[in-house]
Parts: sequence; C-alpha cells; structure tokens
Amino acid sequence: MQQADIGLIGLAVMGQNLVLNMSDHGIQVAVYNRSTDKVDAFIAGGAQGKSITGHHSIADLVAQLKAPRRVMLLVKAGAAVDETIAAITPHLDPGDIIIDGGNSHFPDSNRRFEELKEQGIYFIGSGVSGGEEGARFGPSIMPGGDERAWPAVKDIFQSIAAQVDDQPCCEWVGPAGSGHFVKMVHNGIEYGDMQLIAEAYDLLHRGLGMSADELHAVFSEWNQGLLDSYLIEITADIFTVKDEDGAPLLDKILDAAGQKGTGKWTAMNALDNGTPLTLITEAVYARALSARKRERLDANAAYKSHSIPIAGDRDSAISAIHDALYASKIISYAQGFMLMRQAAVDFEWPLNYGGVALMWRGGCIIRSRFLDNIKQAYDKDPELENLLLDDFFIEQIQRAMPGWRAAVKLAIDAGIPVPAMSSALAFFDGYCSGTLPANLIQAQRDYFGAHTYERVDRERGERFHTDWAGLNGNAISGAYDA
Amino acid sequence: MQQADIGLIGLAVMGQNLVLNMSDHGIQVAVYNRSTDKVDAFIAGGAQGKSITGHHSIADLVAQLKAPRRVMLLVKAGAAVDETIAAITPHLDPGDIIIDGGNSHFPDSNRRFEELKEQGIYFIGSGVSGGEEGARFGPSIMPGGDERAWPAVKDIFQSIAAQVDDQPCCEWVGPAGSGHFVKMVHNGIEYGDMQLIAEAYDLLHRGLGMSADELHAVFSEWNQGLLDSYLIEITADIFTVKDEDGAPLLDKILDAAGQKGTGKWTAMNALDNGTPLTLITEAVYARALSARKRERLDANAAYKSHSIPIAGDRDSAISAIHDALYASKIISYAQGFMLMRQAAVDFEWPLNYGGVALMWRGGCIIRSRFLDNIKQAYDKDPELENLLLDDFFIEQIQRAMPGWRAAVKLAIDAGIPVPAMSSALAFFDGYCSGTLPANLIQAQRDYFGAHTYERVDRERGERFHTDWAGLNGNAISGAYDA
Repeated sequence: MQQADIGLIGLAVMGQNLVLNMSDHGIQVAVYNRSTDKVDAFIAGGAQGKSITGHHSIADLVAQLKAPRRVMLLVKAGAAVDETIAAITPHLDPGDIIIDGGNSHFPDSNRRFEELKEQGIYFIGSGVSGGEEGARFGPSIMPGGDERAWPAVKDIFQSIAAQVDDQPCCEWVGPAGSGHFVKMVHNGIEYGDMQLIAEAYDLLHRGLGMSADELHAVFSEWNQGLLDSYLIEITADIFTVKDEDGAPLLDKILDAAGQKGTGKWTAMNALDNGTPLTLITEAVYARALSARKRERLDANAAYKSHSIPIAGDRDSAISAIHDALYASKIISYAQGFMLMRQAAVDFEWPLNYGGVALMWRGGCIIRSRFLDNIKQAYDKDPELENLLLDDFFIEQIQRAMPGWRAAVKLAIDAGIPVPAMSSALAFFDGYCSGTLPANLIQAQRDYFGAHTYERVDRERGERFHTDWAGLNGNAISGAYDA
Repeated sequence: MQQADIGLIGLAVMGQNLVLNMSDHGIQVAVYNRSTDKVDAFIAGGAQGKSITGHHSIADLVAQLKAPRRVMLLVKAGAAVDETIAAITPHLDPGDIIIDGGNSHFPDSNRRFEELKEQGIYFIGSGVSGGEEGARFGPSIMPGGDERAWPAVKDIFQSIAAQVDDQPCCEWVGPAGSGHFVKMVHNGIEYGDMQLIAEAYDLLHRGLGMSADELHAVFSEWNQGLLDSYLIEITADIFTVKDEDGAPLLDKILDAAGQKGTGKWTAMNALDNGTPLTLITEAVYARALSARKRERLDANAAYKSHSIPIAGDRDSAISAIHDALYASKIISYAQGFMLMRQAAVDFEWPLNYGGVALMWRGGCIIRSRFLDNIKQAYDKDPELENLLLDDFFIEQIQRAMPGWRAAVKLAIDAGIPVPAMSSALAFFDGYCSGTLPANLIQAQRDYFGAHTYERVDRERGERFHTDWAGLNGNAISGAYDA
C-alpha cells in the first residue's frame, strides 16, 4: 500500500503545478488539502490519469508514503505552516522529512528547523521560484535545512527543476533557514533588476523621446548581449503590446508600483546585519515613492518641474545607458552576495555561493546569462570575498565605467531620477576608496558622545578619546546612542 | 514626609545629570539605584547640599513622593525597563505616573503604555537628547504616552529642558510610544546630517585638496549662514585640533564609523511602513561600508582607483558643495517628517509636527537655525502634507538646485562617493516626476506573476490583467511574491 514517493499538502495553483511536474517525471505523489473538495476537483481534473492519489486526511496521506516519509507543504506562509506541521508530526517517525516549499520568512524556517530537529524530524525550507509556469515546467529550487534529508529528496527536486546546460537549477544551499534566506535575496535582486530596467526605460523614453517600437528594438538588441535575461526579454515584449486603441498598452498603465514584502525583508535584513545593500533598498523605496502618485503630482506643479531632453549624440547616450544598467547590475548582485556572506558569518552557515548562482541560472525571474559569469567566479575561487574582486567583473566594470558615469550625469541634467544607478555608482566609489570621510564621523561622535575612535597609526581595536571642546571630560558616555 | 516632586531610578551619568538639572530648578528629587552604593556615592558627592534624597529601596523611594507619584526611569533599554516597571507598580496607585526616559525602542513603549493603562498607571515614554551635557544643562525632551499625565510633568520637564527664544525644547508629542518614535527619527536625522557633512568634507578635502585650516574657515563661514547648527559648529572646531606631532588630529582617525542601532531602526521602520527614507538609509549604509576598511583597501588596489582633483573654479565648487549639503538636508528632514506622518496614520497618532521642530531647535545634536524654518512651515499649515511643498522650502530648493546638481556631477567625475547627496537628488527628481517608469514595473509584475495593474484612464482601485505573452492565462497568481 505504501507506494507514494512524496506527499504534498496545499493544492493552490503552485501546489497543483508542482504535483503535475513531479508526475511528469514519474514520481508518485499523494496529495491533501484542508478543503477536501479541492482534492476531489484536482483528482477528477488535472490529475486524472497521472501518478497522483488524493486523500481526505493527513493520516491517510502519510499512510501512503514510502519510508523515509517525505511531506512537502505549499501552504500560506505564517501560522498555516506551523499548524500544518503540528498536524503532520504525530504521524511521522524520526528520520522522516518535512519540506516547506512556500514563501516563508527565513527566521521562521530557522525556528522550525530547530523545533523539528528536537523531534528527530528532518526539516527542509525550500525557496521555489519561477511562478506558476516555473512550478509546472521547471522552477528554480533552493533547499536548505537538515542536510541528512538531502539524499532522500535530491533526485525528486533535481528532476523537476529547470535545467540549464544539462544541470538542474537546484542544489543544496545550507543549514537551517538558509534556503528561504537565499530565496529572499533572490527576490530582493529581482526588485533591483526591475528598478534598473525601469530607470533605463525612463532615460530612453523621457530623456531621448524613444517610441515603443524603438524601445522594443533597443531592448531586443540588449537581450542578445551581456544583458541577456528573462526580465530584459519580457521588457522587450511589453513594448509590443497595444491597447485597444492601438497605442502602446504600457502608456496606459498607472505608474504606482506595488510590492509584496520580500524586497523590504531583504533590505531590512541588510540594515540589521550591517551589509550596505544600497541598490535593492533604493529599488524598494522607488516603488514606495511611485505609489505616492497624487503627492508627486502636487510636487510636480509646485516646482513647475519637467524633465529636459537629453542632449548630445543619441547612440552614445544609448550605449552609456546600457553600460550604466550593466555595471549597476553587477553592483546589485555583488551586494546580494555580500548579504549572503554576512548571513553565513552570523548564522555560521557554510553557504554554497556557486550553487546559488547555478540555481538562479534558470527557472526563476532573474535567470540570465550573467549568472554563468557569477558561477564561474565562484568556481575559480569558492572563497571569493566579493564578486567585485573577481577578474572578470573588474574588467567588466572598468569597461562600463565611462558610460556609467556619463549616464548618471545625463540623468542629473535631465532631472530624471536614477536612484539605483546613482546609488550603485556611489557605492562603487566608496568601495574603492581606500580612505573615506568616516574619520570625521568618528571625530564628531567622540566630540559629542565620547564614543572614542581608532587611529590609522595604531592597532585595530585600540580606542582613543579626545576632549575636543576642551571640556572637563564630562561627556564620556556609553549610553548616548548616535 | 511625602515631599519629593519626582523619583528617579537609575544613576548612571545621564540619570545623575538630569537629577542635578532638576535640583537646579528647585525640584525635590528622590533617587534610587539598584546598586545602592551608587546612591550613597551620589548623595555624598554631586548631590550634596541639593534638594536630592537617596533611597535604598523602591518602596522607600515611592513613599517619599507627592501625589500623583511621578517615577522616572533612566535604566538600560530592554529587559531592565520591564523589570523596573514590574518592581514599581505594586507601590503605585491608579493615576500615578511612570516615565521611561531611556533609549527604548518605540514598539516597547507602545506595549508598556497599553500594559500600564490596564492597571490605571499613566505611562510616558520620553526621548531625551543632548548627551550628558544636555542632560545636565538643558536637553531636548520628547514625551509621549498617556496625555492625562502631561499636566503633572509639564512644568518639571519644561523647566529643565533647553530654552530657545524663551521657549522650552519640550512639548507633548502624542500617544503611546510616539515620544520614543520621535526620538528615533531624531537620531536617524542625526545620521543623515553627519553623513552629509562628511561628504562635503570629502569633496573639499579629497576633491579640492583643502587643508584643515581652510576647512575650518569654510565650515566656520557656513555656520554663520543657512547651515548654522551644532554639528557644523563642532565640525569647524574639529579641524583646529592637532595631534601631538602638530598635524591635524582628524587625519589620524581611522575612517571606520561605528553605530549603535537607532539609525538602522529608523531605516528599518521606514522600509516596513513604506516611506522612502532614502537619505538616512544611505547614511546608515555608508557607515557600514566605511567599517569594511580592509576590503576597501583590496578594492582600491584591484581597481587602481584614485580620486581625481575637482577641476574648474574653486569658489564655484565650494558654493556648489554648500548648496548640495543644504538642499540634501532639506530632503532628509522632509523624509523624516514623512516617516512621522506615516506613523501618525498607521498608529492613529495625532502628532504635533511643529512641536517636534520646536523641541529639536535646542538641546539636541541636530539643533539648528534650520529647525526654525520647519517650525514656521508647520505654524503656517499644521496639516502640511510635506515640507517640500512649503513655499519657503520650495524657494530654497530652487535656489540651491544648480549647485546641488553641479556638486553631484563634480563628485561623479572625481570618483568621490556622495551617496546621501545623490540619493537626495534622485529622490527629489522622483518626487517631482508626475510620471515615473513604475508603469513598466507593473507591466513586468503582471507579465510574470499576474499581479494586475491600474490604468491612468480609469478609477484608482480598478485592476486589470493582460495576457502579455499570449499564453493561456496560466500565470494568474495571488501567491507569487515579487
């Protein structure tokens, strides 16, 4: 009777599509959903004639599973995950496996990993990216948690994942909640990529006055080169879609961007752990600013503001904008990998950075040729301190540099905001500054709060205080919080 | 026997100085500290001959207090505040008042306000800024919480606060944790101000090659004008301080800035509530980047990077840098007030914005002439949507605009990072853009995740979906999280 390879709980579209994908690969799947009419509808519908069995209780589902039992959850992030886990565990034995394939926030996965470990259950928290199309035909899968479970799920996950150059876009990420952490960073990078493309579009459209057809041509060309990626490809597509009146549909869409929270989680995590993740953060803020449409119209009127056409040679401007987009994208990914590296230190996670790049090459929204270059950088040096210190990226940045600087200056003259491109440039110039003006900040903090400072001519860690104002040393403080 | 006006618990330097300040103003203070030897030392030392009594138990302290009893805590933020409150409340009656004057995070103050309200105790969470000097001779005090307690503490707080133009730098902020919230925003703004000054210094020093004496002259002159403020004043001072070898001490200070968390709290709150607080966030990240000194030296070598002297007329460049600092500062404060306004909406706090500006005019680190202008803007229109829409600031921004743009471009050419100035400019250009490229972001999100979009020619709230790729509508998703 115990014939199913894996049980799946949660039959919303993502869940259904993953089950169908598994079935396509010869995997026997037992499914359950709290609203059991969904089970019946699925079994009578999409699952008909496939290696899928439906069940009306968790006990019944678990009874179908081969050992070690593998139960995958695709339920709403939050309390529903905890409730479902609590309902499953009484039916499991030590060494059985629970996989959370939903969009859980990684601290929750860290907690669940620990809780289940105490019960002898192996927990995997796995990001799954690619939307419903991806789930159906090949997503990017980012599993982390209890590595003892990996051999038992590896074949299933790698067979249903997207494949690039005959390699699956699924590898073991690391311990505890690291799979969901990496998925969060993926989503943050997606915010950054989309903002950069939007800025390039704004410069080309508002600055150079390009039509939808011209924009389609530029983005199609860019998609043949260094920027080759899913997001550039769909952007080129978008310019071709017309509204009913024959005008570009894009022009009818309100410029107020929504968000669902994973971008802001990424940025909040970066602030919390001290990683300068400037580009993604600016992208999150840019969406927030865009949403203040009415206030922007007020400001536009108050300042009689208008963008000024970009002057000078058009082809040079297009080329500069390309280079700015490309260089900024390198910065964004470098910052994203810095964030993962910081998490690896803070949580003592041995993370597989090359594996992350490999997983993102296909199946997910940020898939691109570019991720091959990142994979290669980590293949060359798995302990690479920063992508920006890899020879390939040094050369790329140096080549793109003149255009990058030119494009940001064009934007400043035109009054067109490029928060992500300019923030990336400021970050890069700061990153390459052997000396920054933070000595002044340390002097100020010591002046008003006696925070002390280190010296360039002494060992790190040795701290000094100066009575800057000639006061009587009255300001020494451990409490003042600047 | 019940003769003391207020009880104060926690005799670290901040607490001692506040007590001495109160005593200077004729207030009878009863003091207690968990380590009672601190009480004895204080009574035998700084408190000798003053209207201060020392006590070895909370019961004894409370027994000295006039009704309604006022107990102020200056203990370490976190668990110590909860423990102390739990130790006091058994000795209090309904209508008595507990004031937390420490650096508590505002969500904790929100919680304590509710918990004490259930017991009939009036809670005040009050930011106190100005370091130890301020505590001793006149801090900025930002009280919020249970407004029923305000009449009973108003005279004490306003008498010990800094005074500017015969007005105390202390007013009622609003309900619950709003006092600590406003203090948090104050600290975030302080991060921004310090970063902006550091960027100006970097441009003048690295870019224009100015000596410490020249820098002192420039900052002293700036302190006579629009930028007149405590931080500019101490910056001018700092350039005059020499090391033992006669060289400027500033040059010996390591350029790795520390932080104690309130800046990052501010930025994380902004991300969480969707306020584009770009400048303060960049300031927090700039400190984080500065701390990566060794990695920056590696990058400096890898890119053979060096800053290029700023070309052109020196006086014009100095003037442009001044204008960039001033305009960016306006943006930073406007963003800070946007954050408070968002909190006012989210928490249903009627906040007193003009009062906030008034409180910050003196006693605290960000005190400045500039805050008078903000106070005036809110006096003119207490419901002002945004500082950037006030006539005075519109005029100031427009006057500073050419220099602001010029300075950021000079920085880009010189390879000197100005993340706060350039982020402020990008924000301003976005804020004044009646149309932003977020329409493309919405199109992309609808393309890959069926997130739907609004249209410029239809009512807000009406949502549309397009089958962009000509697929069979298979991508409609409420779950995909981009």
